[in-house]
Amino acid sequence: MSTGFTVAIAGATGAVGAELIRLLEERDFPVRQLKLLASPKSVGKSLEFKGELVGVELLSNGSFQGVDLALFSAGAGTSKQFARNAVESGAVVVDNSSAFRMDDGVPLVIPEINPADLSSQKGIVANPNCTTIIALMGLYPLHREFGVRRVVASSYQAVSGAGARAINELSFQTHAHLRGEKYVPEVFPHPIAFNVLPQVDVFSESGYTREEIKFVNESRKIMHHPALRASITCVRVPVFRAHSVAVHAEFERPVSVEQARGVLAKFPGLEVIDNPGAKQYPMPLNCAGRNNCQVGRIRVDSALDNGLAFWVCGDQLLKGAALNALQIAENLLR
Amino acid sequence: MSTGFTVAIAGATGAVGAELIRLLEERDFPVRQLKLLASPKSVGKSLEFKGELVGVELLSNGSFQGVDLALFSAGAGTSKQFARNAVESGAVVVDNSSAFRMDDGVPLVIPEINPADLSSQKGIVANPNCTTIIALMGLYPLHREFGVRRVVASSYQAVSGAGARAINELSFQTHAHLRGEKYVPEVFPHPIAFNVLPQVDVFSESGYTREEIKFVNESRKIMHHPALRASITCVRVPVFRAHSVAVHAEFERPVSVEQARGVLAKFPGLEVIDNPGAKQYPMPLNCAGRNNCQVGRIRVDSALDNGLAFWVCGDQLLKGAALNALQIAENLLR
Repeated sequence: MSTGFTVAIAGATGAVGAELIRLLEERDFPVRQLKLLASPKSVGKSLEFKGELVGVELLSNGSFQGVDLALFSAGAGTSKQFARNAVESGAVVVDNSSAFRMDDGVPLVIPEINPADLSSQKGIVANPNCTTIIALMGLYPLHREFGVRRVVASSYQAVSGAGARAINELSFQTHAHLRGEKYVPEVFPHPIAFNVLPQVDVFSESGYTREEIKFVNESRKIMHHPALRASITCVRVPVFRAHSVAVHAEFERPVSVEQARGVLAKFPGLEVIDNPGAKQYPMPLNCAGRNNCQVGRIRVDSALDNGLAFWVCGDQLLKGAALNALQIAENLLR
Repeated sequence: MSTGFTVAIAGATGAVGAELIRLLEERDFPVRQLKLLASPKSVGKSLEFKGELVGVELLSNGSFQGVDLALFSAGAGTSKQFARNAVESGAVVVDNSSAFRMDDGVPLVIPEINPADLSSQKGIVANPNCTTIIALMGLYPLHREFGVRRVVASSYQAVSGAGARAINELSFQTHAHLRGEKYVPEVFPHPIAFNVLPQVDVFSESGYTREEIKFVNESRKIMHHPALRASITCVRVPVFRAHSVAVHAEFERPVSVEQARGVLAKFPGLEVIDNPGAKQYPMPLNCAGRNNCQVGRIRVDSALDNGLAFWVCGDQLLKGAALNALQIAENLLR
């Protein structure tokens, strides 16, 4: 293992961290040394990588000496505290949090969409919000061909977006609900079992949540389309790990269902599952564990001019987080 | 019990039938005699009404002799087969199915919205689709004040909309999933536990489902607004009995959040639950068992002109079906 890179994962014990470790191995990423970093409560744990146990170390300012690539997935606060330090230590940071996404000097990248933006990186590259990534995997290929003017969307977001504790909370609450037992929500503000919550992240003054605002701002930045008009309702649903988004979009030029299917079918990382007669369409249960996003329910929108409606699903922990981050890293190495 | 009406319920043993029986009692509807009608497999069962057991009889052409009011909730096929016969026997029919909703001579009524349409009834009044009712309880008050031009919506529909067997299927599949056991979906085309299905009802040639087309056509008819442009994605979610709809609407005239809240707060049958700072908004778990619909997440829409986004919830079996049907009957009696 003398060739390759020293890779650090900040937030190694979280839901995204686990996928990062697995994907580094699965994709044969050139890892010379892997450093697993986490908060004090996880120090002392060990996680398996390529058949060997790697101990979890305390995330600190000294953690990044000799690190080539630092993958951050421990929340915006941790990124703000440690990412600049990692860059000063010589690492390139791929940050899964919202900390730097809208910063001017920080590229915000979905490798299938705007890989060229990576050339302007000054040490930090931001991984977009999961719902934004999954929605744009369906929207961008159509935008490139037909020019999107506005988009109205609604999300059906899995609990994995709120981390490993949220996944446990859905299981726990579901058991309790079926047994008729009471429980107190801990991760989410309200029960998530057999319920849907029209709140993801905190509210802003405008009445939109931060998650909803991220979708608008990040879509504009990623697609280089500052004039895009966009609105979304982000909703948490009792699903474990794949997000779905219902997208209704208006384009500059007319677009037929056949044209749309053709354009979408050619886009890397995306599968068209759209056979209504056979009841085939993307569903989050089928998308869980898959690298590709899936798009279907493609139809001419009856409310918008040059409009198209469609439905995209993607694994929140993979394309929505760990996979996209690693694809960014792979592109940086090239 | 010499005063009052002879009331028949066709489909008495279904999920909506059970609510109709309960509501007739709760609302002190003037029932002289109650006839419970169902298919052969339910004949012989007894259901309680006002402390007495009422036997379930076979639904047949002879069932409606002497019946004043016939409440149908046994699917479009049954309504098509028996409703005209009930009218010929002298009954007024309130039909919960889609059989007659778009017929010219059949009023399609939400009593808070278009009660005057009842005056044109010729024996059959149609109860609208559940998602349409719940969405319009939020949209119509705003339309009356600001003139809706177009609406783009997404639904989060409870399993109760597919009947009592669907409610059992969600419980059964959830248990099986948590135990790691396999199961075969029976009511829904795919697993509903920990999944969402972007299909409600069957597909049309346009790629829209019938449920989605109902929303467009029924909204136009109920609001007397044939020029309305509307588009919806209807999605089944693992929730037991209340539907939610994310609505993004464009109006003729500018509308502020404060104006919208004021208009919505005054509308009968609707509660405004909209305090984002305290994480208060409508949720299906809280709406289950409630007569009123709830609206919240009211904000200026960032993609539409004179746009407003909001979120409505309502109990599918109550305002989405049995309660609305009974309110129609109460209006007919006045």
